[in-house]
Amino acid sequence: MFSIFPIKGTISDIDGFYCDGISAGLKSNNALDMGFIYTDTMCEVEAIFTSNKFQAAPLKHYQKYDNSFKTNFVLINSKNANAMTGQSGIDDIDELFKVLKQTHKDIENPIMSSTGVIGVALPKSKILDGAKSFNLNNKNGLDLSKAIMTTDSYKKNSFYEVKLEDKRSFKIGVVAKGAGMINPNLATMLCFICTDALVPKEDMKELLTINAKTTFNAISVDGDTSTNDTVMLLSNGKSNTYDKEAFKEALRLIMDDMAMLMVADGEGAKKAVAFEVNGAESNEQAEHIAKCLSNSLLVKTALFGEDPNWGRIASTIGASGANCSEESLTITFGNVLVYDKGEVYFTKEIEEKASKVLQQDKFKIICDLGLNDGSFTAYGCDLGYEYVKINADYRT
Amino acid sequence: MFSIFPIKGTISDIDGFYCDGISAGLKSNNALDMGFIYTDTMCEVEAIFTSNKFQAAPLKHYQKYDNSFKTNFVLINSKNANAMTGQSGIDDIDELFKVLKQTHKDIENPIMSSTGVIGVALPKSKILDGAKSFNLNNKNGLDLSKAIMTTDSYKKNSFYEVKLEDKRSFKIGVVAKGAGMINPNLATMLCFICTDALVPKEDMKELLTINAKTTFNAISVDGDTSTNDTVMLLSNGKSNTYDKEAFKEALRLIMDDMAMLMVADGEGAKKAVAFEVNGAESNEQAEHIAKCLSNSLLVKTALFGEDPNWGRIASTIGASGANCSEESLTITFGNVLVYDKGEVYFTKEIEEKASKVLQQDKFKIICDLGLNDGSFTAYGCDLGYEYVKINADYRT
Repeated sequence: MFSIFPIKGTISDIDGFYCDGISAGLKSNNALDMGFIYTDTMCEVEAIFTSNKFQAAPLKHYQKYDNSFKTNFVLINSKNANAMTGQSGIDDIDELFKVLKQTHKDIENPIMSSTGVIGVALPKSKILDGAKSFNLNNKNGLDLSKAIMTTDSYKKNSFYEVKLEDKRSFKIGVVAKGAGMINPNLATMLCFICTDALVPKEDMKELLTINAKTTFNAISVDGDTSTNDTVMLLSNGKSNTYDKEAFKEALRLIMDDMAMLMVADGEGAKKAVAFEVNGAESNEQAEHIAKCLSNSLLVKTALFGEDPNWGRIASTIGASGANCSEESLTITFGNVLVYDKGEVYFTKEIEEKASKVLQQDKFKIICDLGLNDGSFTAYGCDLGYEYVKINADYRT
Repeated sequence: MFSIFPIKGTISDIDGFYCDGISAGLKSNNALDMGFIYTDTMCEVEAIFTSNKFQAAPLKHYQKYDNSFKTNFVLINSKNANAMTGQSGIDDIDELFKVLKQTHKDIENPIMSSTGVIGVALPKSKILDGAKSFNLNNKNGLDLSKAIMTTDSYKKNSFYEVKLEDKRSFKIGVVAKGAGMINPNLATMLCFICTDALVPKEDMKELLTINAKTTFNAISVDGDTSTNDTVMLLSNGKSNTYDKEAFKEALRLIMDDMAMLMVADGEGAKKAVAFEVNGAESNEQAEHIAKCLSNSLLVKTALFGEDPNWGRIASTIGASGANCSEESLTITFGNVLVYDKGEVYFTKEIEEKASKVLQQDKFKIICDLGLNDGSFTAYGCDLGYEYVKINADYRT
């Protein structure tokens, strides 16, 4: 038995974790654009990365460490992704850390994490000047979560305390960023999970991977998958406490919090929608269909228009390539059944009720294929003018 | 040897073909919304249909005929797709034709083809009244092409004469509609190809299928695939003339014309873009990547913003799941090389040149994977505010 409580604070309220966000002149107007996580003892670390073949330089740099490496420092910047920059992108990171160690002598096995524009060389001197100025004794998690934002419209933090039956406890916290270019296989998202739980190295990757399936890998803003996506777990073990089931559930909560914040903050999105597919031949089929729905432009624009156009839902299911039948399908918006196994059914009264569901900020669309018991829920959002504006202008 | 000439006219300028478009009150403001193709002798007919599992009622009605059926009448309506309407949708068509034959006694094995909103019962009495009023002697192809438009911003017609070496000739013409919901596997498109060539039944499906691959199945507006897509070929054989190679090429031209008109008329689109992928491991890999590019929202919004953001092209290739390498990839906008095998290369001068390419209405983006000799070209368009406007409001 265990209990998990959301508590006030950020990752820097965990014993031994320090962080901050500063302005290094990467963004305009002196906005915060760079930050760090530092720990006063070495941490176990694990990360899951984007499925994009063109992994960015920081991801490749991380993977040069051997599998059992520990770290006490993560440097994070926004505005430049250091992606598609070849070997020189990796060399830049090595060089940067080599110089930085002259200032911050305690840094060991440093990690870099970047987000921003692809294909531009890292502005090394600005980043180096910024990093030299870090005060590694600062505990300023909120500024870190602000510094890593790109098109995010709000900071993304979450923090829990986990109490075990024997009264021992540990903490787990997260800072993340991500709002667009988000798709089933992670997103342009950076996510740093910190804990003082004494997590065995072998559990870290396993639990990250299991929980990613129903959280980060279930959300989509625009169906694109970035070169830089990273979910990192840092554990300093200072609580001397661990329980696998409790940690797994706390990790799932943290990851689910971030995933839901990201999809609700989908670029220009006003609505967070859960696409629940039931009655599929298998869970895999349900997942495929749920993700087709959350990625369909016609569905997304209908949501934006608050138009209970269930025909687009049906058409997308039909186009998914999955085996399905008009005669066994039902579609429900919220709690309003709009299509029932081949019956033309959509009266004015039902349409009005369905419209009301779509006027909400958050609702479910439930599709039952009536075939077997496969199910999956994917999370998406509407797509409106703001998305176009943000993405037509992003680089300039 | 043969020659193919574009000529003035529409499908009704082919000997034995009659057509018209009328207003039956399906659209508002007395706009044309219904039409027909009638032939004074029975035609061989073949069709390829959407890959959507939920084929609309007219498609199922067509497929009730045995494989060798001939026809002399196609009834076409816009504004209602008669899709997701179950058995009653098919019964509606049967009933409608049963009554219509009392007025137009010559009609044999009639075909129906519909486009519009999904999941609403066919407005039978309006359609029947409209169809009763048809004058089957009219030759008014332009009005037919107008009547079948939905979100199209212009009519889609094309017409060719094919001359063989022995001076014999035949004609081939097409009317089509389609602007949105267009994806690799056809589109919400209806396309009626008429010819007086004496096409053997066994060649019809084969040549439609071969040519669809590089034309209709290579275009995408928004990655969605409709319930109603139909490409139909009607041949009355009146020219007594046929040459397989000549017909194949003329059919390809006709289908390519329509595909390019559709992509250029993509809902709200201002730019038609060819995504040419070369150097892939196989043609299949090239096709997959080219279609990922033409469907990527981030690519489409960058095109709308005329932003030479090649990073999004690279990222989409990386996310496609295909095997590829930064060190062998090149990306070219028009004739401007913007990424060359891992070199950070994108100077201000190159960026300006690339921007000029993107300011055009029509251009190529060429990606060479440098792996083998697989290639494919997919056709897409930009996505801007108009797309959102059209699709948020479509049903209302």
